[in-house]
This record gives sequence, structure tokens and C-alpha cells, in this order.
Amino acid sequence: MVLKYFEIAVIPGDGIGKEVVPASLNVLNTIAELHGGLKFTFTEFPWSCEYYLEHEVMMPETGLETLKNFNAIFLGAVGNPDIVPDHISLWGLLIKIRRAFEQTINIRPAKYFKGLRSPLVNPKDFDLIVVRENSEGEYSEVGGRIHSGKDETAIQNAVFTRKGTERAMRYAFDLAKQRKKHVTSATKSNGIVHSMPFWDEVFRDVQKDYSDIGTASYHIDALAAAFVTKPEIFDVIVASNLFGDILTDIGGAIMGSIGIAPAANLNVNGKYPSMFEPVHGSAPDIVGKNIANPIGQIWTAKMMLDHFGEVELGKRLLEVIEEVTEDQFKTPDIGGTSTTNAVADEICARLLK
Amino acid sequence: MVLKYFEIAVIPGDGIGKEVVPASLNVLNTIAELHGGLKFTFTEFPWSCEYYLEHEVMMPETGLETLKNFNAIFLGAVGNPDIVPDHISLWGLLIKIRRAFEQTINIRPAKYFKGLRSPLVNPKDFDLIVVRENSEGEYSEVGGRIHSGKDETAIQNAVFTRKGTERAMRYAFDLAKQRKKHVTSATKSNGIVHSMPFWDEVFRDVQKDYSDIGTASYHIDALAAAFVTKPEIFDVIVASNLFGDILTDIGGAIMGSIGIAPAANLNVNGKYPSMFEPVHGSAPDIVGKNIANPIGQIWTAKMMLDHFGEVELGKRLLEVIEEVTEDQFKTPDIGGTSTTNAVADEICARLLK
Ligand SMILES: CC(C)[C@H](C(=O)O)[C@@H](O)C(=O)O
Ligand SMILES: CC(C)[C@H](C(=O)O)[C@@H](O)C(=O)O
Repeated sequence: MVLKYFEIAVIPGDGIGKEVVPASLNVLNTIAELHGGLKFTFTEFPWSCEYYLEHEVMMPETGLETLKNFNAIFLGAVGNPDIVPDHISLWGLLIKIRRAFEQTINIRPAKYFKGLRSPLVNPKDFDLIVVRENSEGEYSEVGGRIHSGKDETAIQNAVFTRKGTERAMRYAFDLAKQRKKHVTSATKSNGIVHSMPFWDEVFRDVQKDYSDIGTASYHIDALAAAFVTKPEIFDVIVASNLFGDILTDIGGAIMGSIGIAPAANLNVNGKYPSMFEPVHGSAPDIVGKNIANPIGQIWTAKMMLDHFGEVELGKRLLEVIEEVTEDQFKTPDIGGTSTTNAVADEICARLLK
Repeated sequence: MVLKYFEIAVIPGDGIGKEVVPASLNVLNTIAELHGGLKFTFTEFPWSCEYYLEHEVMMPETGLETLKNFNAIFLGAVGNPDIVPDHISLWGLLIKIRRAFEQTINIRPAKYFKGLRSPLVNPKDFDLIVVRENSEGEYSEVGGRIHSGKDETAIQNAVFTRKGTERAMRYAFDLAKQRKKHVTSATKSNGIVHSMPFWDEVFRDVQKDYSDIGTASYHIDALAAAFVTKPEIFDVIVASNLFGDILTDIGGAIMGSIGIAPAANLNVNGKYPSMFEPVHGSAPDIVGKNIANPIGQIWTAKMMLDHFGEVELGKRLLEVIEEVTEDQFKTPDIGGTSTTNAVADEICARLLK
């Protein structure tokens, strides 16, 4: 009587990815049990910096072909700059998948989280979501160098297409419809004079189709500051690849730990699987201690449930994560003494209650 | 018996610039009085968005020629997007001067400020300074558009020269020598694969000449988050034009108000005057109420004193600013009820005591 069946490609990746991913798979299995009519299979791939040292590639040539047939990709963290330069490891795996599978939208919520100590004196009840353009902009392979020695010059091109920009913005407006009906655009048209005035124009155009949604436009410097001084005023923020990256780390910081921030890389044309990965990195400094915070990865699993249409279960999972945190089942980064597994186990136990 | 004589070009600019600049000139006059052997003359220029509406330029054609002969430029704020688009007003005045006068270094301190309510629960005693590359990088006029309608695409070039990058880094290392002997590089070489790996290489090269200075390298997303979670670990941070812009607004935010953050645009080859302007903008929403915080502009005057070699007087001025703030002479943005002028007057009175 299995009603829904999802095949998931699991890439733990590097560092604490290998600790928080297994913990989260237990939670997903518990969710399936709870549901009754839901089944997951997990197929694990060892692609990582260690894999690179052995094979000189981050994933096999057939990697994308293999991944293509899964319903989703569940990824831990990629990168270990001590053994492989970041631009090789990331562009050979994380960014490669984002691009090849047209995961053009990256969504990342940040909210005031019960039981967590925000570094802000007055975090109020902020609850925002950043829609990050995930396929172009400042993250571009276009560019290079000229001259050498004293005269060496590097040129980096940022590429903004109307299609890509508009797609991210429409996604943001559609999302705002289901939320507090407000979209803030992250710009920098006062300093960056080609791409950002274009960004502003597209925003004004798209906005016309959503007369019921309020809007605001902030330069990224002021917006980054506002994430610290008044995050509660925001609902949906739409941002370029780089600006979204920066804002969502600040989002993690004001929640109380980057270790809890989740993310989803969405393919919105239905052609390829989406990929679910937390905002945090591989944190080489705490590997092997069973103290990595699993919440970012587990909250990411909740976003995968949403994506599969299991919104009620997703909601329940997030409630349980908050309860468990409030009841002090917490890893050291957020002021507790629990292990990675203890937190995940408690979440499983409460789900089944 | 006048020993030192400085001719200063004053550009109040837009909005609250016209309020905080006069207040600060009073403070500078008081400083001159106190010193005895110091004299300032102030020559005011009305260049602003209103000037633009009348003359279709932000400053006359001869503007740069005129400014060239001054010892320094003291600027309030530029921009009023309701009447002139930002990219016109800023690039026609502020950025134009930065570039023409080779003000290649922008330095911006942020420190825990007695008497101010930081939005951080535990701001500790942070005291950092951002050295921002101020002449190239992401702020470039190189780029454009191709196609129109659905296919329109904007390309923005970021240009990093070894000369410009190295200059900013050497400035940062030299500054660190006089401080806590640590430089942090703001990079993003994991996502931005041409300019930022180049930035990292130059950093590694420059570092070799400063074996007594400790270093660290943070990706800008993690660094922005660290400004919120642990600003006390930083001493000098060296950043590109855009990254420096973003970090220094966060710096203002964690101090308790962007209204107090100062900046100096330095010409380091001695050919042209330097320019002193606070980090905040023209704040059209509070114009005319005599409530704008003058501290950003007055602290900027302190940086001008440092630049003129009057380091002791500069130090004294900053002490007085902190005292006055602690004693609750504060504008509303930082929780007080004082007017712009009352704060400046109190600073003058205490300097003379
Ligand atoms: C107004 C704007 C162009 C400017 C900049 O980004 O440089 C401002 O934010 C600053 O930091 O001085
Ligand atoms: C690792 C890095 C390339 C990546 C990014 O900047 O996209 C990360 O910071 C993220 O936010 O997913």
C-alpha cells in the first residue's frame, strides 16, 4: 500500500556533512514510518574532496547522468580547502549540479527560533525567506586574466539575463502571495552601474503583475545592516547569487547559529531533480567529535518534504525541531551539551510520540 | 603665529548632509581654537541633486580643477533618488571625486562605543577597521547590455589590478603594525572564480613581506556573519570595493547606528586631496527636523585631523564624542532626545573645558 515513493541521491560530501547527513536520514525514515504511505530509498555517493584526491575529479564523468534519475539530491557539505582548493571542489560538485540541473532558485528561510539564543538584543519575531538567483549573476565562469607580474589584471564578468532575473523575481512574488505579501529587492544600483540598474528595471516590470504585493528596494549594504537592526520588517527578499549568499549567512547568524540554516536548490522547470543542502559548510575544525549541529540538515529535509508536497509533515517536523531545541537538546554551538546523534534521536522519538 | 593652515573644500551635498556638516565645522573651529597654532578655512560648494536639477550636472565642468587645490574635501552625503537616480548623482560627484583624485583607499573604523546600545547581546569590546579598495573592483564602468525584451542581458565587469589590490593590502598590513597586528582578507574565491582567487594570490604574496602580522581569510558570507557573532576577533580587514561597502554598513549597525560610522577616502600618492565623508547617506526621511546624528560626520572630522598629523587632537575629539554620548547627549536614532546642534554644541563645550 505504498502510495508515494521517492528515490533520493545522498551526497554526504566533506567534513561534518558525513555526520549530519546520516542523522537526518534517520529522521526522514521516521517521517516515512509516521506517514505510513511514504517510502524513501537512499543511494549514497562518496563524492567529496577525498574522492578528488583519489580520482582527480569531484565526481565521475557519468555523475550527472546517474543523479538525473533521482527524485531529489540530499547533500551535506562540500569543501576542504586544506586538501583541495575551494573553487575546484565547489565548482566540480555543488555548483556543477546547481547549473547542470538548472536549479535556478535557491530558497533560504531565517526565522526567530524558540530555544535559541539570537546574538540580537531584540530579535522580535522575525520570519523571512531569501529567494536567491542560483544560476548566473556574479557567479560566472566568464572572465580571465591579462598580463603578468606587476601588471597582472583579473576581469570577472557578472552576467544577468532577463530570463534568469525575472524567474527569481516571479518566484519571490508568488511565494509572497502565500506569506505576508511583501517583497524586498536587494540591489546596489548606486555603485554597480550596469547589472544593478538592470536588476531594478526588471523588478519594476515584474512588480506590475503583482499589484497586491507590497515592495521595497534596499541597497545591499543597507540591507545587510537592516538584517541586524530590524529583521522583523522583512517577508520575502529577492537577491542575486552573491547578495543572496551574503544575506543568508547573516540570516543564520541572527538565528543564533549558521548550523541551523537550511536551503533548497530548486529546479523549477521539472526537468531535473532539485537539491537540498544546508547553508553551513563542512566545518573541518569540529569533524569527528559528534558535536555538529544536525538542525540545518534536518530543516533542509523539511524543505524536501515540502517540495514533495508533504507540507503538513514538513510543518510538524519543524515544530518538533523547535520543541526539542527549546527543551535544551542542543549541540555546543548553540549553547547545549548534546551530541549530533542525541539531537536527531530526540527529534525521531518525539515525532513518533 | 599660525603654524598650520588648512584650506578645506566643504560639500554638504544632499539631505542631512546640509545639517551635520555645519554642526561639524563648528567642532573643527573649536579644535583650531583649542590648538592655537592651527587654522582652517572652509569654502563651501553647493553641488548636490538640487544643483543637478538646475544645471544638469552634479558639479561644474571645472569642479575637479577647483577642488584640486584644497588640502582636503569634507563631504556630507550625496543622493536623493526621488529627484535624481542614484547612479547619476553618485557617479557624478562622490565616485567621480574618489576616482579623479585617486582616493584609492577607503578606511572605516567600527568600535564598541560607550553610551551606545549595540543591537548585539554581547558586543564585547570590538575595535576593528576596514580597509576598502576604493578605485576599482566591482564598481566599474565597464560593461553594458545586449539584446532587448525577453533576451536582454546585462554584463558587469569587475576589474582587479595587481597594483590596486596590492596597494590596499599593503595599506592594511602597515595599519595593522600600529594596531593589533592582524589582517583578515575578505574573499569569495569559492564562488567567484576569476577575481577572487586572484585576490587570494595577491594576499599571499603581500603577506610574505609582513612576517610579524597574523592573517586570516574569510569568505564574505561567513565574514558578514562573523561581524554579528564575534566582531571582537577582528583587527584590520582588507576588502574589495563592494565587500568593504557591505562590511562597513554592518560595522555601523553593530555599533548601534549607521549614523555614527565615519570614513576617509585617502589619496596615498600625495597628488590630490583626500576626502572625508561619513558612511551614512542623505536620509531624506528625517531632513529638516534637526534630529540627524552628527557623530558620523564629527568622527569623520577626527579622521581628517589624523590625516593632517594632528593625532593627539583627533584622539581627544573621539574621547569627547564618547563622553558626550555616555552622558546621554544623543539624537533619537540612538535612543536620545537631543537635536543635531545640541550634540555638536556639547562636544564643543567639553573640548574647551
Ligand atoms: C552611495 C554609494 C555609491 C556608496 C558606495 O557604495 O560606495 C556608499 O554606500 C558608501 O559606502 O560610501
Ligand atoms: C560554498 C559556496 C560556493 C556556496 C555559495 O556561495 O553558493 C555557499 O556559500 C552557499 O551559500 O551555498
